[in-house]
This record gives sequence, C-alpha cells and structure tokens, in this order.
Amino acid sequence: MSNDTNIVPESYPMIGGDGSNSYTKNSYLQKAGANSVKAIIDDVIAEKLDVEKQISSSKSAFRIADLGCSVGPNTFIAMQNIIDAVQQKYQSQGFASHMPEFQVFFNDHTSNDFNTLFASLPPERSYFATGVPGSFHGRLFPDFSLDFVHSSFALQWLSKVPEELLNKNSAAWNKGRVHYESAPDEVAQAYTAQFAKDITTFLDGRAKELVVGGLMVLNMPGIPNGIPHSSSVTGLTFDILGHCLMDLAKEGLISEVQVDSFNVPIYVASPKEMTQLVERNGCFSIERMEIIQPWARAGDLSSQAFTMHLRAGMEGIISKHFGTEIIDELFDRYCKKHGEFIGLLESKCNEGNQLFIVLKRI
Amino acid sequence: MSNDTNIVPESYPMIGGDGSNSYTKNSYLQKAGANSVKAIIDDVIAEKLDVEKQISSSKSAFRIADLGCSVGPNTFIAMQNIIDAVQQKYQSQGFASHMPEFQVFFNDHTSNDFNTLFASLPPERSYFATGVPGSFHGRLFPDFSLDFVHSSFALQWLSKVPEELLNKNSAAWNKGRVHYESAPDEVAQAYTAQFAKDITTFLDGRAKELVVGGLMVLNMPGIPNGIPHSSSVTGLTFDILGHCLMDLAKEGLISEVQVDSFNVPIYVASPKEMTQLVERNGCFSIERMEIIQPWARAGDLSSQAFTMHLRAGMEGIISKHFGTEIIDELFDRYCKKHGEFIGLLESKCNEGNQLFIVLKRI
Repeated sequence: MSNDTNIVPESYPMIGGDGSNSYTKNSYLQKAGANSVKAIIDDVIAEKLDVEKQISSSKSAFRIADLGCSVGPNTFIAMQNIIDAVQQKYQSQGFASHMPEFQVFFNDHTSNDFNTLFASLPPERSYFATGVPGSFHGRLFPDFSLDFVHSSFALQWLSKVPEELLNKNSAAWNKGRVHYESAPDEVAQAYTAQFAKDITTFLDGRAKELVVGGLMVLNMPGIPNGIPHSSSVTGLTFDILGHCLMDLAKEGLISEVQVDSFNVPIYVASPKEMTQLVERNGCFSIERMEIIQPWARAGDLSSQAFTMHLRAGMEGIISKHFGTEIIDELFDRYCKKHGEFIGLLESKCNEGNQLFIVLKRI
Repeated sequence: MSNDTNIVPESYPMIGGDGSNSYTKNSYLQKAGANSVKAIIDDVIAEKLDVEKQISSSKSAFRIADLGCSVGPNTFIAMQNIIDAVQQKYQSQGFASHMPEFQVFFNDHTSNDFNTLFASLPPERSYFATGVPGSFHGRLFPDFSLDFVHSSFALQWLSKVPEELLNKNSAAWNKGRVHYESAPDEVAQAYTAQFAKDITTFLDGRAKELVVGGLMVLNMPGIPNGIPHSSSVTGLTFDILGHCLMDLAKEGLISEVQVDSFNVPIYVASPKEMTQLVERNGCFSIERMEIIQPWARAGDLSSQAFTMHLRAGMEGIISKHFGTEIIDELFDRYCKKHGEFIGLLESKCNEGNQLFIVLKRI
C-alpha cells in the first residue's frame, strides 16, 4: 500500500526524545495554534457531526487519525479535545447509551520517533492508541475506515523540494536563497505547483479513507488572500534563515554551492488556492475555510523562544544538508537577527498567519 | 483503556536495533517454530474461515493483530503468510472480486522498539501497517474490531513474577533457583496460578475484540500432557542459567540474595491446562490444540547459536536485575554448560516442545 502512488516522499522528522532542543519541549507555538482552534472544532463537531448516521452504521468504534502527529504532547491534547467534543455531542443528542469506543491512529513518517510518542501516551486516556508509519501523501488506511481526520501544522511540508529550484538552467534556480520569499516569481510558482500536487494526492487518499459524512480538520500556516507570497511570517522567517546561511558561506564556514542547493520544503497557502484544490478533488464540502491569528502579538514571544521552536523543527533537515557542526552557530545568528526584525514579524502576524479548514466527505 | 484491568504488566522487551546481539539477528529459532506451523495455519484458514460471513458484514477491511510481535522479521513473515492464505481462500471460493484490503496491527509492550519495527516493514507489503503499544493482558482494541489474532512465542511470558517466590516465609520461596525446574512443587504451583490468571485476562480481552467467527492462532513453548514441569526444554534451559548465576554468586561476582530474588517470568503450559482455561472462558471453540516438534533435532543447533538466542530474549531482564557487567561472563558460561547438556536437551526436544492452538470466537 506504501507503493500506491509513485511518490517517495521525503521525511523531515522533528527532533525526537525529550531533551532541551526536542520538539516535545519546543512546540508550544504549535500548541497555541491548536488551542486557538479548539473552540471552533468544538462548534464544528456540535454542528456537523451526524451522530444518528454513526449509530446506524453498527461500527464498533469511532476512529480518528492525526496525520503528521510528531511526538506529542500536542497531538494528545488535540485528540482528547476531539473525543470530548464527540462525547458531548452524543450526550446532548440523547445518545449517551450509544457512546462509541474511540480508536486513535497517530500517523507520521516512518522516521518519526514513535518510541517517544508511545512512551508519552497519557496513562488515563479514554481511547485505544495505535501508530501508523508512513507519508500522508500516499494511502495509510483501508477504504472508509476513518470517521474523523485531523492534521495540525503538517500539510505545509512539501513531499519534496521542486526540482527546478536546483536546475541552473531554470528560471526557478534559487541561487543564494533557501525559500521563495524575495525570490523571482518562477521560484514561488515551482513551490505552488508542488504544493498543488501534494494536496491533490493528500485529498485523493483521504477521500478513500474517510466515511461519507466524516469530518476533516486541517490546521496549518496560512496567508490571507491577495497578499503576495513574500509577505508571510513563515516566508520572512526563512528569508532571515537564508541570510544567516549566506553569511556563514561568505565567512567560509559552508560553501555557497551548499546554500544554492538547499531549499526549505515548506509552503504557506491562501484560502483561495486551498478552495480551488478541494473543489477540483470534488469529494468534500468546505464547512470552514478561514485565516486566523492564533497569538495575541508576535512580540509576546522572545527571539530566543522563537529560535528554539524553529530549531526543533528544522535542525534535522539542516544538519542533514550542511552537517551538524554549524547548527549552534547558525541558530545563535538567527536569534540575533530575529530580534532586528521583530517589528516587521509582528505586523505580519497581525494580518493572520494560520489557515483553518473543515471539510466533510460527501 | 490501558487501565481496563488493575494489572500493570511488567515488560521484557527483546534486544532492539539490529546489532549482533539483537533479537532481529537472533530469532531464527522462533522463525523455525513459526515455519513449522505455516502449513497448519494455511489449512486452518482454508477450512475454518467463513468468507461469506466476512463479505456480508460490509466491513472495509480484514483486520489482523500480531500480539507480542517484537521487532521483526518473524512477524512480517507470519502476517504475510496469513494474508496469502486468506486471499487463497477468497479465490478458491470464487470471491476474488470481493477481496478485502488488509490492515495489520503489530502489538507489543510500549518499551518494544517500534522505531526498528516500522523501519523494517517490507516495502512491498500488501497491507496497511499499524503499531499498537501495550500489554495483551489488558484491552488493546475496540469491541469486535479484529478478524484474526496471531501470537507467536509471547504468551509464555507472565505479566509478573508470582509474589510468593520472593517471600522467605512462603513454601514457594525460590531460593538459589531462577525457575521452577527442580524446585519444590509450591514454586511450580505459583507459576501455574499466575499463568492461569494471565491467560484468563488474555482470553477475556480477545473475546471482546474478535468478531464472532474470528480465528485466533497461538503458538508458544509447550509440554506434553502428563510430563512433569521439570522436564521441559525451557525448564532445563533456565535450570542451567540458574546454575551459572549461582556459580557467579559463589565466586562473589553477584550476591546469592540477588539470585534468590530473581525469577524468570516464563511458563510452559500443557494442552490439558490450556484446554481448561479456554473452556472456563467459554467464548471460544478449540479448533486445534496440539504439541508439535518444530526442529529436526535439538543437536542441530550449536550451543553458540542457542546461547545467542537466549541472550537476545533474556539480556534485558537479566541486566536490569544484576547489572550489565555480568552479561558477557554469564552467557560465556551458559554456552559451555549448554554443551555438557546437549544430549539431555535433545531427548527432551524430541518429545515435542511447542504448543499450537487454534481457537474460534463463538
């Protein structure tokens, strides 16, 4: 089943374990992002979940998948929130005696640290826990075997870097940069095209796996409609990272060729382009599609804390390309530069930087 | 769900990774044991699987669990064998067009090395793979959510050492030994009672999780009816291990108190006692219950190879109790002593040392 498509997706695992640089200890931005949508998810389940259909299907359990779950703890909070909301819906509809058992499928790449994930499972959980290794750009589950799909801060990762970025003869050759912020249009177009391919395979897979009437909640970095790609917080973040890498190259700590051949496989989508991709798939109704602003103010987060977050997510992919020796130096420089740009980052954040989507399988 | 019972089972993970002492590299005895029953499992599925019931249930997939799967590769071979046999059954009955998708749940203790298991999954597998952390002495899956349960060389592990063995005032105090071979009857009785408790909770859990008509194949060390406990190959193996540990104690490398407080939580059951436990549960019909002899002759396996197998399975639990320093010395001595007993081991093997069971949920 892993070969259901011809894609062999790259994996970019977060830092495993629970050390000071781990994702476990440096993912409270993602947690804030998840918390900001908790109330909306509660509402969505209360309004949209068809409990009577669920009961009449005589299935033994309510099955939930978290796609791109990483190692916790955010995934545990998100899954419990969903279960609480489903139970509340059953109760409010007078079906408390038909309460289903819950089975949660924690999915991430095979290289994810599932040992840490499993060891961290809440002992008092009210669900059966399973882990599912593999890319959500391929098939992961049998046909119509899921009742609810959740994915938080994972779909922004492309399955691979667009090939044109590495081709010196292409207009999309991304020399001296690591992302599409402040790059020629062709670079951003190459990212956009890869994202469209990835979301297409993602939606195709989930359309087969979700039961009709099943809900899918997607939460990821986003950019408001009509704002140029170069203006996202994520874009600025990687622009600063690119500058820091070029500084290291100028000082001879790494080579410029290394920087030229490195591109961050992350894309920040707008509601408009996601709407087009969902409509093209044709198997889902759009129940929600909105840009939200999860943090009070970007300035509330210190440069140090922001840098730790970036490091937890990016250290693996950067050290794979440049070696581990430059990591400390790179993120020290990033932290200083982040401080210089704090005003600009804050203004971008205030425009809203999170895309929240609810789809229903029709 | 992990707290569905009050048992907090101990876990005894096999050596993870794929180094020279790993379970991955030292589990071909278990593989031979599994191979020896492949043909029987094929027959059982051909004879007993109710394909028409399966098709009429409108479920999306055929779900198989391997309980106590360790880290592979044996579990992958066993699961593929079962899938091949189910597909063969569908084809021979003329239901090739109704072929289900397959979902395999690999289960073992949370401390099992699931990262190695997932990284070793066959790339060309014809099933959706999931991992399920937790003890099979508790609940692991929703009600009626499995079509087939398999467990190979796992049920002999007790959920805990019987408490009486550690009580100086008990007749079952197991001073100077690590198992029930050549021990007072009370020691064997304490093991028997713990095994009965464990199998009871195991069968209770599986009775809830298996669909009616679902099959369960159990494969484990066994002893023929009417033969004393002290006469099993496994018993002799641990008797030799106990002698080696006492030798180390006499030389002052460990203390006798340490040996007194260590007991191997493994039990070797007879068809008769398993039959009683299954009948007491009442939810399963016994389709097969037999002692088989998986290897041509025990002497075919060198003392070195046998010792490596024992070490892969036991190093974790022994080093936890005695420290890692004695491991090399202990297994060197074991290997020499094993050579002295090879004739006796061979004669015991020839009586049959594997218990093979097929149950059907009624």
